[in-house]
Amino acid sequence: MEDITKENIANWFKDLQDSICNTLEELDGKSKFLEDKWEHPEGGGGRSRVIKNGSLIEKGGVNFSAVSGPTPDKILQALNLPQADFFATGVSIVLHPENPWVPIIHMNIRYFEMSNGVWWFGGGIDLTPHYVIKEKAHSFHQYLKAACDKHDSSFYPKFKKWADDYFFVKHRNETRGVGGVFFDRLTNTEHKSKEDHWAFVKEIGQTFIPAYEDAVAELRNREWNKADKDWQKIRRGRYVEFNLVHDKGTKFGLDTNGRTESILMSLPPEANWEYDYQPINDLQKKTLYLLKKDIDWI
Amino acid sequence: MEDITKENIANWFKDLQDSICNTLEELDGKSKFLEDKWEHPEGGGGRSRVIKNGSLIEKGGVNFSAVSGPTPDKILQALNLPQADFFATGVSIVLHPENPWVPIIHMNIRYFEMSNGVWWFGGGIDLTPHYVIKEKAHSFHQYLKAACDKHDSSFYPKFKKWADDYFFVKHRNETRGVGGVFFDRLTNTEHKSKEDHWAFVKEIGQTFIPAYEDAVAELRNREWNKADKDWQKIRRGRYVEFNLVHDKGTKFGLDTNGRTESILMSLPPEANWEYDYQPINDLQKKTLYLLKKDIDWI
Repeated sequence: MEDITKENIANWFKDLQDSICNTLEELDGKSKFLEDKWEHPEGGGGRSRVIKNGSLIEKGGVNFSAVSGPTPDKILQALNLPQADFFATGVSIVLHPENPWVPIIHMNIRYFEMSNGVWWFGGGIDLTPHYVIKEKAHSFHQYLKAACDKHDSSFYPKFKKWADDYFFVKHRNETRGVGGVFFDRLTNTEHKSKEDHWAFVKEIGQTFIPAYEDAVAELRNREWNKADKDWQKIRRGRYVEFNLVHDKGTKFGLDTNGRTESILMSLPPEANWEYDYQPINDLQKKTLYLLKKDIDWI
Repeated sequence: MEDITKENIANWFKDLQDSICNTLEELDGKSKFLEDKWEHPEGGGGRSRVIKNGSLIEKGGVNFSAVSGPTPDKILQALNLPQADFFATGVSIVLHPENPWVPIIHMNIRYFEMSNGVWWFGGGIDLTPHYVIKEKAHSFHQYLKAACDKHDSSFYPKFKKWADDYFFVKHRNETRGVGGVFFDRLTNTEHKSKEDHWAFVKEIGQTFIPAYEDAVAELRNREWNKADKDWQKIRRGRYVEFNLVHDKGTKFGLDTNGRTESILMSLPPEANWEYDYQPINDLQKKTLYLLKKDIDWI
């Protein structure tokens, strides 16, 4: 059995980044990822990979990082712990499609440990369609439920609800999209070992590609017009609002002097704001109606 | 002498909104403001006025509000005070120009009081050019300095520095623009009465139009091309980042269930993000070089 050291976790994450980038390049068929290697001032670094102006992906990033240093005070205070060093590694993905019919997708899986022995896993996948299509949301959630159910039948309901609560744009009273799964601070308990959690986190990482392939299938070939693009830009504005106002990961990264360009790769290529925008057709109305918590997509 | 009651302050602010909107319509020459009247769930309300697709202003808002209710816990905690009611009134302006040569401008003046007798004024004006032109920044700061100097020679240096520190995009290590003046919690002291502060706040409100007319003069007629517009959209992205990540007023408004559409009227009509954007010409480089604190524009 593989030893679950931080090095092994980071290496697996790196390999996942490689394989996801390869598959996305094939799927896109036009653009290639460009890589920026960077170093963290305190220790470690990352590989930021970005793709743009593709046939499928207008702007996207697939980032790997493994950084270390003194644990930020915010974390120590929250946990009420004395000074300790930390190590954090993860893979983060956000893909903004060119075609407004295709959803935005986000995935993150991460591992965190401290020199005092504390460790946890976190992560999630969620989908943000510009136009919500029930069948596609259903199918997306089925991929996630199947991945969760292989490990624990309580995971999908719990982590689906967590995603609904997390990916919520409070000041708009709407969810970011149709949700997915979100989990954090998974550590050893009476019933779950580090092996169990690591197997689950790897499963989520491996679910990204099939879930995304399904999410874009057929939609990427739909015709779209200027009105669709305008709506996409309005919805991207909401994505910006969530990421900059509410997303704890973005906030934490910016607060702790993370690499700004890697953190903000999640932002869309173009976003619009219009004062008091009102939906102009039934599809837009239906989308707004479906941006709610606690919809059972299964 | 006029009685400085909250009603009188709010009425003066309303009149200022009227006169600024009238002058801006004349200055724009094409578009007119549309008004939304709204009510605050706890008490009071506002008049949001927005203008779009003008010959000068692509998207802008001039908002008045006067709201009341139980003081938000955040303020009471910060001041270590027991429960009290509050009253807050103000005028807020953000204007995004069509022409990339014309700067974005922002002004806010506000008055806050509580049923326990605590009160203060706050406000500021600042300029965010997409291309920084030294002579224009100099001239803008001269308007502000002249306004400040009429009241106290210590105001301009103090409030100019406050603006540099406040309008700072920490995660980009750059100022939002060329600054201006910013002040908060002006209340009575040994040397300053409520009359003194109110006279100063009115002066700032009345400085907005002449300072803006000067800031747009000549520039509004400059030719611009797609490269200028692209750069404007990148810079507008930074404006979004400041407002959503750092601006305390925006944060406070969203946290306390303020009217989202009125708060976010500050966001630009269109903004772009490009991974690791690098300046493509000397003008862009010069602008980035001048987005620093502590430049003496006088």
